Amino acid sequence: MNAGKLIGASLGPGDPQLITRKAWDALHNGAQWTWPVRRKGGDSYALAIAQAAGLAVPHDGMPLVFPMTHDAEKLARYWLAAATTVLETLHSGRDVVFLVEGDASTYSTFGHLARTLHGIDDSVAIETIAGVPAYNAATAKLGQPLADVDDTVAIVPAAYGVEFVERLLVDFDTLVLIKVKPLLDELIDLLERKQLIPHTRFVEKAGSSAERIVEDVLTLRGEKVNYLSLLLVRNPSRVRGETRRGCKKKTS
Amino acid sequence: MNAGKLIGASLGPGDPQLITRKAWDALHNGAQWTWPVRRKGGDSYALAIAQAAGLAVPHDGMPLVFPMTHDAEKLARYWLAAATTVLETLHSGRDVVFLVEGDASTYSTFGHLARTLHGIDDSVAIETIAGVPAYNAATAKLGQPLADVDDTVAIVPAAYGVEFVERLLVDFDTLVLIKVKPLLDELIDLLERKQLIPHTRFVEKAGSSAERIVEDVLTLRGEKVNYLSLLLVRNPSRVRGETRRGCKKKTS
Repeated sequence: MNAGKLIGASLGPGDPQLITRKAWDALHNGAQWTWPVRRKGGDSYALAIAQAAGLAVPHDGMPLVFPMTHDAEKLARYWLAAATTVLETLHSGRDVVFLVEGDASTYSTFGHLARTLHGIDDSVAIETIAGVPAYNAATAKLGQPLADVDDTVAIVPAAYGVEFVERLLVDFDTLVLIKVKPLLDELIDLLERKQLIPHTRFVEKAGSSAERIVEDVLTLRGEKVNYLSLLLVRNPSRVRGETRRGCKKKTS
Repeated sequence: MNAGKLIGASLGPGDPQLITRKAWDALHNGAQWTWPVRRKGGDSYALAIAQAAGLAVPHDGMPLVFPMTHDAEKLARYWLAAATTVLETLHSGRDVVFLVEGDASTYSTFGHLARTLHGIDDSVAIETIAGVPAYNAATAKLGQPLADVDDTVAIVPAAYGVEFVERLLVDFDTLVLIKVKPLLDELIDLLERKQLIPHTRFVEKAGSSAERIVEDVLTLRGEKVNYLSLLLVRNPSRVRGETRRGCKKKTS
């Protein structure tokens, strides 16, 4: 009997219409559903996307616990437990699909699960289905580019600090600042000082049905925002150096 | 009679299975298909994705010409011609769907078409459907993260030069270097000097059926690669500063 494979199915940022056809198929091909939760009995945003698409949770679907902690040892224990659980199903010959919000390669639990699984059985087949990241959904909704021709884009957790963000303004046309909650007021101060307030948008729960877009970020001063929040900053005054190009062949 | 709306339908990087359900619907709802070509009679990569999905091109589908040039005046003329064509259909009450490869907010023609259209008639409704960017498909295929927890990601055209790229190694865990063709040998030299060759992958036509992945980029020295090529560089030796976090609420 052949072992099953683990499929990381990116479901996109929340709108069930942004699920790809491939991920949609993976939800329907008989694989055992699994999804991440922060604690036993906890909710899963990834599972909620599938449910919002009108799909019923299969009776043998299974949550996998990944606690929110930076304690590497604790995390490793949970990853190992999850991988061991998944491996049992795979060894029975059945595929396992792991539901992922957003894109499986982008700030996702899936990579840890996949690496841990390969660590205990490197013969197991793993497939990752790419998805739409939340910030792409946000720029689409706003009708603004993430990257225009020749633009540079930085995607950074705000946790690295305001000085770090300020340094990026030298080289980047677009900043996607994620997890801005702890530094929001300081970031707003920086953006005001750099005259970037008109070019900044705040997006909470991008791409989900609870999405909230704030056009004037100055109104957010002092507010406690959601953990799933980002700032999209366009930086029109960046000074560009020379660029070097290849011969522009007339292909289409 | 109500005017139609313009829909920018991101079809993803090439694999027709990576089309979202929403873009799929937009191809089937009776909207007039339009797609970008570099010159009259030229091929369209976006259209080819729809065809690869088994869809027939509607008899009234229409290519829109966007020449590959940095001549702003020439471009503006073509955008205006395209927008005027689209507007005729919209004013007849019918929707127009513009087929986009990859994601419509990311290095795409769609933003120019949308802005030009709004410039001549700001009452027109425009909807952008986000899609899977090519580099997300590439990292999924490679089974490596684009961004792991707390990682920083830079997406930059290689045209800004090797010194620019080298500077980014201070602050970024992942570099997505696009359009590497004209500088590939110099970039390989830099990566070798920085001992990053083992952490670099070359991807040509990411996510398409003609995708080519090169694991040892040293073998590419002197080769003329395709225009649609990128380097994915992981930078494990980046020194991270302190990070500041908010209170980790135990939500899932």
